[in-house]
Amino acid sequence: MTTRHPFPFSAIVGQEDMKTAMILTAIDPSIGGVLVFGDRGTGKSTAVRALAALLPPITAIRDCPVNAAQRADCPDWAGDLPDVSHDIPTPVVDLPLGASEDRVTGALDIEKALTLGEKAFQPGLLAKANRGYLYIDEVNLLEDHIVDLLLDVAQSGENVVEREGLSIRHAARFVLVGSGNPEEGELRPQLLDRFGLSVDVTSPKEVSERVEVIRRRDAYERDHSAFMLRWQAEDAALRDRIVTARQALKQVTTPDSALEDIAGLCLRLGSDGLRGELILLRAARAFAAFRDDTAVGRTHIRAVATLALRHRLRRDPLDEAGSGTRVARTVAEVLGA
Amino acid sequence: MTTRHPFPFSAIVGQEDMKTAMILTAIDPSIGGVLVFGDRGTGKSTAVRALAALLPPITAIRDCPVNAAQRADCPDWAGDLPDVSHDIPTPVVDLPLGASEDRVTGALDIEKALTLGEKAFQPGLLAKANRGYLYIDEVNLLEDHIVDLLLDVAQSGENVVEREGLSIRHAARFVLVGSGNPEEGELRPQLLDRFGLSVDVTSPKEVSERVEVIRRRDAYERDHSAFMLRWQAEDAALRDRIVTARQALKQVTTPDSALEDIAGLCLRLGSDGLRGELILLRAARAFAAFRDDTAVGRTHIRAVATLALRHRLRRDPLDEAGSGTRVARTVAEVLGA
Amino acid sequence: MTTRHPFPFSAIVGQEDMKTAMILTAIDPSIGGVLVFGDRGTGKSTAVRALAALLPPITAIRDCPVNAAQRADCPDWAGDLPDVSHDIPTPVVDLPLGASEDRVTGALDIEKALTLGEKAFQPGLLAKANRGYLYIDEVNLLEDHIVDLLLDVAQSGENVVEREGLSIRHAARFVLVGSGNPEEGELRPQLLDRFGLSVDVTSPKEVSERVEVIRRRDAYERDHSAFMLRWQAEDAALRDRIVTARQALKQVTTPDSALEDIAGLCLRLGSDGLRGELILLRAARAFAAFRDDTAVGRTHIRAVATLALRHRLRRDPLDEAGSGTRVARTVAEVLGA
Amino acid sequence: MTTRHPFPFSAIVGQEDMKTAMILTAIDPSIGGVLVFGDRGTGKSTAVRALAALLPPITAIRDCPVNAAQRADCPDWAGDLPDVSHDIPTPVVDLPLGASEDRVTGALDIEKALTLGEKAFQPGLLAKANRGYLYIDEVNLLEDHIVDLLLDVAQSGENVVEREGLSIRHAARFVLVGSGNPEEGELRPQLLDRFGLSVDVTSPKEVSERVEVIRRRDAYERDHSAFMLRWQAEDAALRDRIVTARQALKQVTTPDSALEDIAGLCLRLGSDGLRGELILLRAARAFAAFRDDTAVGRTHIRAVATLALRHRLRRDPLDEAGSGTRVARTVAEVLGA
Amino acid sequence: MTTRHPFPFSAIVGQEDMKTAMILTAIDPSIGGVLVFGDRGTGKSTAVRALAALLPPITAIRDCPVNAAQRADCPDWAGDLPDVSHDIPTPVVDLPLGASEDRVTGALDIEKALTLGEKAFQPGLLAKANRGYLYIDEVNLLEDHIVDLLLDVAQSGENVVEREGLSIRHAARFVLVGSGNPEEGELRPQLLDRFGLSVDVTSPKEVSERVEVIRRRDAYERDHSAFMLRWQAEDAALRDRIVTARQALKQVTTPDSALEDIAGLCLRLGSDGLRGELILLRAARAFAAFRDDTAVGRTHIRAVATLALRHRLRRDPLDEAGSGTRVARTVAEVLGA
Amino acid sequence: MTTRHPFPFSAIVGQEDMKTAMILTAIDPSIGGVLVFGDRGTGKSTAVRALAALLPPITAIRDCPVNAAQRADCPDWAGDLPDVSHDIPTPVVDLPLGASEDRVTGALDIEKALTLGEKAFQPGLLAKANRGYLYIDEVNLLEDHIVDLLLDVAQSGENVVEREGLSIRHAARFVLVGSGNPEEGELRPQLLDRFGLSVDVTSPKEVSERVEVIRRRDAYERDHSAFMLRWQAEDAALRDRIVTARQALKQVTTPDSALEDIAGLCLRLGSDGLRGELILLRAARAFAAFRDDTAVGRTHIRAVATLALRHRLRRDPLDEAGSGTRVARTVAEVLGA
Repeated sequence: MTTRHPFPFSAIVGQEDMKTAMILTAIDPSIGGVLVFGDRGTGKSTAVRALAALLPPITAIRDCPVNAAQRADCPDWAGDLPDVSHDIPTPVVDLPLGASEDRVTGALDIEKALTLGEKAFQPGLLAKANRGYLYIDEVNLLEDHIVDLLLDVAQSGENVVEREGLSIRHAARFVLVGSGNPEEGELRPQLLDRFGLSVDVTSPKEVSERVEVIRRRDAYERDHSAFMLRWQAEDAALRDRIVTARQALKQVTTPDSALEDIAGLCLRLGSDGLRGELILLRAARAFAAFRDDTAVGRTHIRAVATLALRHRLRRDPLDEAGSGTRVARTVAEVLGA
Repeated sequence: MTTRHPFPFSAIVGQEDMKTAMILTAIDPSIGGVLVFGDRGTGKSTAVRALAALLPPITAIRDCPVNAAQRADCPDWAGDLPDVSHDIPTPVVDLPLGASEDRVTGALDIEKALTLGEKAFQPGLLAKANRGYLYIDEVNLLEDHIVDLLLDVAQSGENVVEREGLSIRHAARFVLVGSGNPEEGELRPQLLDRFGLSVDVTSPKEVSERVEVIRRRDAYERDHSAFMLRWQAEDAALRDRIVTARQALKQVTTPDSALEDIAGLCLRLGSDGLRGELILLRAARAFAAFRDDTAVGRTHIRAVATLALRHRLRRDPLDEAGSGTRVARTVAEVLGA
Repeated sequence: MTTRHPFPFSAIVGQEDMKTAMILTAIDPSIGGVLVFGDRGTGKSTAVRALAALLPPITAIRDCPVNAAQRADCPDWAGDLPDVSHDIPTPVVDLPLGASEDRVTGALDIEKALTLGEKAFQPGLLAKANRGYLYIDEVNLLEDHIVDLLLDVAQSGENVVEREGLSIRHAARFVLVGSGNPEEGELRPQLLDRFGLSVDVTSPKEVSERVEVIRRRDAYERDHSAFMLRWQAEDAALRDRIVTARQALKQVTTPDSALEDIAGLCLRLGSDGLRGELILLRAARAFAAFRDDTAVGRTHIRAVATLALRHRLRRDPLDEAGSGTRVARTVAEVLGA
Repeated sequence: MTTRHPFPFSAIVGQEDMKTAMILTAIDPSIGGVLVFGDRGTGKSTAVRALAALLPPITAIRDCPVNAAQRADCPDWAGDLPDVSHDIPTPVVDLPLGASEDRVTGALDIEKALTLGEKAFQPGLLAKANRGYLYIDEVNLLEDHIVDLLLDVAQSGENVVEREGLSIRHAARFVLVGSGNPEEGELRPQLLDRFGLSVDVTSPKEVSERVEVIRRRDAYERDHSAFMLRWQAEDAALRDRIVTARQALKQVTTPDSALEDIAGLCLRLGSDGLRGELILLRAARAFAAFRDDTAVGRTHIRAVATLALRHRLRRDPLDEAGSGTRVARTVAEVLGA
Repeated sequence: MTTRHPFPFSAIVGQEDMKTAMILTAIDPSIGGVLVFGDRGTGKSTAVRALAALLPPITAIRDCPVNAAQRADCPDWAGDLPDVSHDIPTPVVDLPLGASEDRVTGALDIEKALTLGEKAFQPGLLAKANRGYLYIDEVNLLEDHIVDLLLDVAQSGENVVEREGLSIRHAARFVLVGSGNPEEGELRPQLLDRFGLSVDVTSPKEVSERVEVIRRRDAYERDHSAFMLRWQAEDAALRDRIVTARQALKQVTTPDSALEDIAGLCLRLGSDGLRGELILLRAARAFAAFRDDTAVGRTHIRAVATLALRHRLRRDPLDEAGSGTRVARTVAEVLGA
Repeated sequence: MTTRHPFPFSAIVGQEDMKTAMILTAIDPSIGGVLVFGDRGTGKSTAVRALAALLPPITAIRDCPVNAAQRADCPDWAGDLPDVSHDIPTPVVDLPLGASEDRVTGALDIEKALTLGEKAFQPGLLAKANRGYLYIDEVNLLEDHIVDLLLDVAQSGENVVEREGLSIRHAARFVLVGSGNPEEGELRPQLLDRFGLSVDVTSPKEVSERVEVIRRRDAYERDHSAFMLRWQAEDAALRDRIVTARQALKQVTTPDSALEDIAGLCLRLGSDGLRGELILLRAARAFAAFRDDTAVGRTHIRAVATLALRHRLRRDPLDEAGSGTRVARTVAEVLGA
């Protein structure tokens, strides 16, 4: 199962919010991650893996432990790497719930320390995730000290390991994708705030849609090659749109009226701090780029406002549904329907 | 007692649900494990060991720590194995409640590390269980960090050990069989969901049936050889049917009406996510193969719906009995009695 | 005090239930242990030590760490033992409350590991108890992880130590004898179930009986040799009866009516699972052998039913007294008084 | 302060119960220790140290870590000791509240292990206390795992250390003296039961008595030599009476009427188990020997009944005062005033 | 992101209290740190980093681990440093929430210890912060043992590490800047007291102000160089005023009337202890120096009284807002509006 | 700040009780320590440091780790010290809240152990405090295991370290000075009892007094040398009085009437135990010596009764204020006003 090609992104039935959120962070990673709330079995982890397979490859120095684009950006503890680069898939790294701190941050390589008598660093999941995605299933069950560590790294873009006389630092910039069932544990507000966008996913409510999901999933498993071939073109088209939007992003302009719409909306919603405004601006801009538009407007703000703001209203993730409605209603009042 | 042949599967009195569930996962391991709820002393562990002894042997590379069928699939840390294969019984590995993480995942071999100065891996229970069964008695009492670890491996089919500068991975695909007494501790929903099928077992309510159980058990212990001989043929016949059904499985077709029945049933039951549909489809298909039928139909869906869906309705295993009734009633409404 | 001969079994005043239960497990160890409930100072540990001194010696390979009868059954980590056997007293091993896991299961011998660079195993209490008794005073205060470990070993008859690249296994079959004061902590049902028989002991209620207890105890301590001589013959006679009953056990027959009596009784009592029936059958059979009878009958079942069933009715050991009465009443109803 | 001679036993003002209890255990150590309840500052630890200084010296092998009387009784890990004995004061060892398990039981001597490559044992407080007293101030605050350990050793008279492949045992027979303030923590019943006698001490209620206490204490500290000289003769006389009573103990007879008095008294009080009877018998016998009487009679039983039984009536040490009254009243009813 | 120049201090929109407090501690570090209360996303950490970039560089011995000005002040464990100094930015050190004690205080360098056999010290965050700022985000979530350690160092101005036979001490004088959300955990009063000044920050309540914040932040990120150039001059002017005020500080006089105002104000407010008076005196003096005034007067006291006293009235940080009002009202009553 | 001369004892404004208590223990250290209750910022730690600087130097063997007066009293693990003594300031050692047990008691010197292969002891804070003061700020927050350790050492006057085969003991006699805010945690009664005297300090309630405190403190910091010169003579005079009183102490007599007054007072107050009487006697005697009187009388008892008895009445430090009033009232009743 592990060596099989992931399920095609385009073949996911429904779940438009989740797909939009993932596409937006693929266009502008500074939006800062996606938090996916929902029941088990709604295809959250399938979607993350599908997105990873959809994205264009990145160019990285061969054997560089942090996938750096330039040889100068590879950490010196990586040894003497040849200045040769190659294309690799966008990294998507799983952070399993029970992972030890050593596995996440990396640790001293004891064998080398003992046999060669030198400090050698064994990089961890944060190194592997650099320039890609870090995926945490059931992020609400993560241990507190790992959450602290992630918050620290996610803020600084850098992983610092100082232990036993060892002082290592390396770049660790990634898009955090988390899934969680709000019924099984709350998220600390600091962690919640670290996610740019949030979406709610639920099981489809129509028999026909559910039949389609089972049919595609069963075909994917029983008739793998034919199924992949069937969806290859649609995935490629989407990949092209993302790459184009990335390049267009810098040219998208932001009129003052858009800034006032954004600030007015957030003020009316009473959202804490100013991060909501910044993320909403970035998400609207990425959406404009994806739509081939050249300036941020009300259409774009309206389309992404719920994704960007819902999880900033109230700390209790149990109220997310209600928060979504509140955002939508306020958007309608402030920006028109 | 340990070297004696296990109790014959065919000699188990009653307990038809449990026996059916075990046979279905033997036909299609992707159904994903069986969870057996019930009182102490109802023969749960006896049944698992009996199933193990019933199954046809597997062909594996000699001395391969993960029982791989091909030499190329043996992990390189296993050293230089000769390309010789032999038949071994289907592995059935017990995971005892107090097992340390090292024992489950495997660990660094300290002796080799100290004397030979090299990283040597001592494989654990997950390696031994590859291509077989992992049995956890009283799974509801398992420690949380072991549960996390099992969920991670069960999802990926791979065991990853990264500790002290050691990075080991090996295949770990197995059918998880768990037993538990719901009165003594709930199962985390994530773990519950990982089991494809669930059954409820209770002590027989008839004196005659209980006398038969004691009689067979006493004969098995006091008159071992004669008893084994008595049941040998029945076990062999059942083994043949399972092998035949495995081969027939790929030819079983799934008409659209069956997909609609399955989706409609799950929607009506309000089961979380879509895993219920997939498992129900697989179980019905395995049942059809076992019955020598060539297409999935209502008979098959009806026969396995309770096994596949009961534990997906409500998170509290204390309501299992009630859930079983709800599934049966809804099956009757949706598919006819 | 430690080198003195234990108090003679025959000299114990009263406490007939406890003495019967110990004699039955001495005749058939597969009955599976005795749990003694009662106040402090009622002579529980005195009785265990007395039983040990009463039992016939076993023949074991000299220096074998698990007291094996055959040299082939000694573990290979025990080194190169000469094939010489000798008689040793039946082992009775105390498991003290604060014992570490290492002390119970055995552990790596660090000295040998460091100086000789080889894996050497230092066997623990479980090895010493093989073929004998494992006694736990205040079993209800035992730490949970030690209980888990004991349950695992008691079920498999084998002690498996896998730690730090060490993989050791050896036979560990013993009769578990536990004492506990139910007012100071409940037993986990799984542990309770592991004991074949249970008895309740209380302080004598008659002055004359208490005077006799003090007199014998004082004589034992102040006039040791004379006291031991006085009871020697009675202990020897009892030892002969046990040895004879052991040999007769295989010839005792079990008519269908006895099986029906046993199953009917358990069904009426609503005892969980089927272990109660099996233990009751074995205890009645051992009692028949002790009485020189050739077939199990109502007399035997009636005599041991309370010992075998009382602790299987309800999980709360605080209700033991009431459970005892319920068993006795049901026995009278089902089997006649 | 540490090198000064302890306060003379005879110079202790009042506190007759405490002094009697200590004298009785000095005559017959098998009575099993004294538990002193009372407020801070009532001279409990002063009394223990005073008793230690009062007792006759013991003869021990020079350098023997367990103060053995015979060279053959010194443990072999003590090395090759010359067979020379000398007189040493009766050991009185403090067990401080925060003492580690290693310090109590002894531990591996790491230096020798590392430099000489051999297992060397560094004996602990239990070795030092052999043949003497182990004093625990505030025994009710002792950590549970140390209590477990003490109970185990106090019962077996032997200290067993099995750790890291080290297996050491040595004699550890001592009189346990504990003090505690029942308002600050209860004693576990098992530990309570381990003490033969218990006394209650309170501050004196008369000005004149308090003045005398301060005067003596101040003299002891400001005019040390003169004060010690003043009380030397009284301490010597008491020491002689104890030595004489020790020798007379074996000749003291116990008429049946005394046994019946003891059993009747305990039965009437409803004390748990039979340890109460045995201790009462021993204490009465020691008291008879101290009084130069040749047979145990009602006078002796009456004199020590409260000391021996009060702490066995109820588990809660908070009720001790009431328990004392109950014992006294029952003694009067059963034995006459 | 990490190598970019921090956001310019002058470009921070509003937040006058926070800016004033930071400027005052930059003028007189003995005021003792700033505690910033407020919602997430109000720019607290941005402000700290901005202040750091604003301050004039310090002259330090090259490679000195504690940034000492004089070579004699470098610790001897730093080895043989050349007597060469250079200018470095004022250190601003982050203390991340999950930092281990070793990382904070420094620790033994194990590699050097093992390979060179000598005690080598690896300095920690406290060494790096010497002569600069130590910033703790979410100080109310800091672990207790780290808080204890910080209080100890903050009081003594010295970091003492005594572990494993290592005894290291070095200067550790820094201004503590902490931010916290009072809704997520209280501060221990001792830690609260260690901060000289406190400020409350909130999100701006005007659309226009919020638009300005977003506009500047977006420009900073999308048009970095132009934005930095735009604010360079304003930052330089502020830096000059701080440097001038530092030199003027010693010449500022304190008339008796000012002392009486300060004492009367604190007495009226009922603030605990006398630290409030001292800090208020220092803050008023620094403010006078910043205003180019030569004597402390009511204007200065009035301007800084709330900053210096609010967090000393009540221990519960949840009442801060109310405390601020109380200080302001009392200032008006005692000193006039 | 650390190298500056401490604030002069004589320059402390008010706080007469605290100053008296410190002077008394300086005259007679066997009074046993001072516990200072009070709000933060009332100058408690300033006073301790001031007292230390005030006291006459002690003569100690050079390099002796326990400041012994005689070379024979230096521990042998200190190596071969020359028999040369010099004058050192009275040691005042801070015990910081987070101090590890190793730092308090001393520990094995790992470097020497590894490189020289010998047991070397690195002395801790208890060694440094010998013959001086041990100061614990916020003693009510100290960890329990450190409190246990301190109680043990404070009682025996000796520090015993037994760990890892190391057995070290050295003198550790010191005056314990603790400060604490009773609102933030209670003291265990045993620790409370260990302090001879207790005082309550509060912030001054007069503006003029507060102005004087700020003025002196500000002068001390801004005009250090002039300030120290100003108070030098007053400190010297006080030092002379203390030295004279120490010598006079042995000649002060204690009439029976004084003993009766003391006992009567304590009995009336119902103080636990007899330590109160002894401490009151010593404190009154030291006070008499300080006043140049030759016999203890009612004046002296009256002056120190509150200091010596208040904290012995009730265990709850929250009632201290009320206790002080009770002591004063009873003193007036028993001894006259």
